Amino acid sequence: MNITPERIAELLGEEAKSSAGIIITGAGSILTAKKNDLTYIDHADKLNLLSSSKAGCVIVPKEAKNKTFDFKRALIYSENPKYSFAKFLRILEKEIRPAKKPSIHETAILDETAILDDNVFIGPYAIIGKNAKVFKGAHIGAHCFIGENVQIGEYSFIHPNVTVREHCVIAGKVIIHSGSVIGSDGYGYIKIKDRHEKIPQIGIVRIQENVEIGANCAIDRATIGETIIGAGTKLDNLIHIAHNVSIGKNCLILAQAAIAGSSVIGNNVIIAGQSGISDHIKIGDNAVVMGRTGIMSDLDENKIVFGPIGRPRNEAMKIEVIISKLPEMYKTLKKIQKKLGLN
Amino acid sequence: MNITPERIAELLGEEAKSSAGIIITGAGSILTAKKNDLTYIDHADKLNLLSSSKAGCVIVPKEAKNKTFDFKRALIYSENPKYSFAKFLRILEKEIRPAKKPSIHETAILDETAILDDNVFIGPYAIIGKNAKVFKGAHIGAHCFIGENVQIGEYSFIHPNVTVREHCVIAGKVIIHSGSVIGSDGYGYIKIKDRHEKIPQIGIVRIQENVEIGANCAIDRATIGETIIGAGTKLDNLIHIAHNVSIGKNCLILAQAAIAGSSVIGNNVIIAGQSGISDHIKIGDNAVVMGRTGIMSDLDENKIVFGPIGRPRNEAMKIEVIISKLPEMYKTLKKIQKKLGLN
Amino acid sequence: MNITPERIAELLGEEAKSSAGIIITGAGSILTAKKNDLTYIDHADKLNLLSSSKAGCVIVPKEAKNKTFDFKRALIYSENPKYSFAKFLRILEKEIRPAKKPSIHETAILDETAILDDNVFIGPYAIIGKNAKVFKGAHIGAHCFIGENVQIGEYSFIHPNVTVREHCVIAGKVIIHSGSVIGSDGYGYIKIKDRHEKIPQIGIVRIQENVEIGANCAIDRATIGETIIGAGTKLDNLIHIAHNVSIGKNCLILAQAAIAGSSVIGNNVIIAGQSGISDHIKIGDNAVVMGRTGIMSDLDENKIVFGPIGRPRNEAMKIEVIISKLPEMYKTLKKIQKKLGLN
Repeated sequence: MNITPERIAELLGEEAKSSAGIIITGAGSILTAKKNDLTYIDHADKLNLLSSSKAGCVIVPKEAKNKTFDFKRALIYSENPKYSFAKFLRILEKEIRPAKKPSIHETAILDETAILDDNVFIGPYAIIGKNAKVFKGAHIGAHCFIGENVQIGEYSFIHPNVTVREHCVIAGKVIIHSGSVIGSDGYGYIKIKDRHEKIPQIGIVRIQENVEIGANCAIDRATIGETIIGAGTKLDNLIHIAHNVSIGKNCLILAQAAIAGSSVIGNNVIIAGQSGISDHIKIGDNAVVMGRTGIMSDLDENKIVFGPIGRPRNEAMKIEVIISKLPEMYKTLKKIQKKLGLN
Repeated sequence: MNITPERIAELLGEEAKSSAGIIITGAGSILTAKKNDLTYIDHADKLNLLSSSKAGCVIVPKEAKNKTFDFKRALIYSENPKYSFAKFLRILEKEIRPAKKPSIHETAILDETAILDDNVFIGPYAIIGKNAKVFKGAHIGAHCFIGENVQIGEYSFIHPNVTVREHCVIAGKVIIHSGSVIGSDGYGYIKIKDRHEKIPQIGIVRIQENVEIGANCAIDRATIGETIIGAGTKLDNLIHIAHNVSIGKNCLILAQAAIAGSSVIGNNVIIAGQSGISDHIKIGDNAVVMGRTGIMSDLDENKIVFGPIGRPRNEAMKIEVIISKLPEMYKTLKKIQKKLGLN
Repeated sequence: MNITPERIAELLGEEAKSSAGIIITGAGSILTAKKNDLTYIDHADKLNLLSSSKAGCVIVPKEAKNKTFDFKRALIYSENPKYSFAKFLRILEKEIRPAKKPSIHETAILDETAILDDNVFIGPYAIIGKNAKVFKGAHIGAHCFIGENVQIGEYSFIHPNVTVREHCVIAGKVIIHSGSVIGSDGYGYIKIKDRHEKIPQIGIVRIQENVEIGANCAIDRATIGETIIGAGTKLDNLIHIAHNVSIGKNCLILAQAAIAGSSVIGNNVIIAGQSGISDHIKIGDNAVVMGRTGIMSDLDENKIVFGPIGRPRNEAMKIEVIISKLPEMYKTLKKIQKKLGLN
């Protein structure tokens, strides 16, 4: 890619202040960008960083127009520099990772009853089961297993080596990363004498539009009914979603989080890394479960919680400070006991 | 499926009280079941829920015969309604997920020295290594890699995309879900100067009969000897089992739990989600490690423990209550110190 | 394998004291070794264990020469018995798991622009993308997906069913276990109104020489730039490494640990199992993060920390002892309050 700052500004719908002859070929952070890289700062109070940046062009907030700062190369003014930068990365991405032309690899195995739009990409050694449907613009990577009666929605992108088991429904514009398993059996047993007898798991997983699922996640099918991942929700890597869980819209679930059976997560909820939600829990809209937190009872909307039993953040943080003082408290208490002759 | 409550009762070996003309086509929970669905309640004290259920037929405990309650459609009386319901799900499952006929896909790669029973299913692109044995009724899903000298026991079901490395032994009626890796190298190094030199891991994994292993688990082979998963034990998703671990019979290990090297787990142990067992630990029969618990020392049989260092449940719960009072305790202590002129 | 203790000693460069006629065919621990097994003890103070061992030959520390103990079969004296034993396991391993002859399976799909050394192993159904390079002695297991422009260094061993996405660089002598995903997209979004818009992840993952990566790990590519795993670092199973993380040399990262975005880990750091490092954290050389520990602020070199907020080990252990006394402390405090008329 060889592109001028003016052309980039034009593509982004923004205004450039350029110095002649600068050519942008890539991107970097404000610290790592080289002379042909584009970068950005998200707030005007970081304008002082520009003097030491080697970047050829920096996307800056619009208010920078009225500020004085030391930078000789190109600028692009934007209402939302981070977003403009993300849009530039999309342009770059098209070069680095050009979209595959619609095609079905000769080694892909398509059941004769499967219905594929003309305009799909099916990678080598992918398998498309009986009565499966692959809609317009969908991309099924190499080695993917798409089970019977599965639906893969329009423009969804399934990376190599993903397993989608029978009957699961993936809506449009969903991204699933490598190694993830959609529709594994839920963990359901009934104890008969000493044995755990398996309860058949005959439900499905339904993934709504614009969901992204990271690498090596496991999302179990419902016992009966549906495990649901709501529209716009984003899952990081190595996440466990148990049977009959229902996750709302636009949630962020971070790496190695786990949600146990039948729990219901609202909209815009954030569940940070390595957190665990017990079974049959309800979490209200906009709640935030901080990292490494355990949730064992329902959580109201808008709450922010942290720690082993999910206490309100401020309380949890205060408690952690006092826990650090426990050895001192213990000594003081012993001293008082002695003074009062209580022991 | 179109089936009458009378016929279901007959198949389950139970007694029906039916109202004419009801046809069951599926299943649901007491709250979600529709007019052609079967559902169940597990205790007679939930009989009041029937008045608001739309289900066509409910499996109820036998003692319901002597109770008055409001429900006009079909009933089936059972000693164990949940179990009867599970059996009905098995019948439904056979329709939804009919067993594959024994067959070997033309794209499967079978080493000429591999020994396969006549009556097995080998999916597309599966690979069966040198001297491997696949016993009667076994199902090897698409894209599975079955290494050299591996044994897959009778009626075991290996879902698509599972890796079983060389020499590992899977007994009969085992289920392994997609993405799981059996027999990866244990994590063993010896520090020589600044480098960690690999200790070869030449043992195996032995999985006994009736084990179920969830999606994306990793079970390491022993350094020498065997990593063992005992008969009837059920693993959820994303579980780590380190080298030389030995797990007893009929244990329940929940999602994202981890058991470090050489630990020995008894029979009927429950290790709940996201818990971690240190290396070289012994856990006695029937012990329960609650969710998100860390175990750093041996645990006697029948113990129930919780929390960062695995305290007895009641103690741990009491401690959590008091931890919530720590800010108040800290203030009180300061007040006392002041009053006594101790600071 | 049939080998005499003398020949083993010769291969290890050590000295044997043998009794005639002993043949070694395998290996075991001091407790499990049988009469044709080799074993070892790591310290002379364990020489008393030899009297009850059935092993045919034991590798013992050199100082054992001057000690009296009861063992009638063969001995090998070594400066470092554990290391000598590891070397013997390597010999055994060559028998059990003989190196595959260089070959390219007829079902492997190699892009015509891919460059492969003559001397490589490419397993069945492996896929090698456009412009990928596979260097001398590299082993690409069955079902691996090696994306466009990927490099796999000399003598690296990629187990079956690994995904390496486009542009990632794997140096020499790297081992990657089954199910791992290298180069999945980092978890990066920008909130525009209610939606999380994806920030393209166009960087790479660079894995330096002698790294080992366990089963079912997920290592995300950088947004821009590189996610780096330093030379000699060893990852266990099910580990999450987020985008733009940089890990130094010779680190040990244990199972189910997670390192969030842009964190920088020094050299020789140990991060034990199920620990989590927040984003943008710096961890100094030789630091030790004990198991199940959360790190939310920078950690100086040589520190050893434990617990939910990563307190210094000794402090954390002392605090855990006092936490166990909290119910008693609470009672005492109430008693004092009462005595002083404070409530």
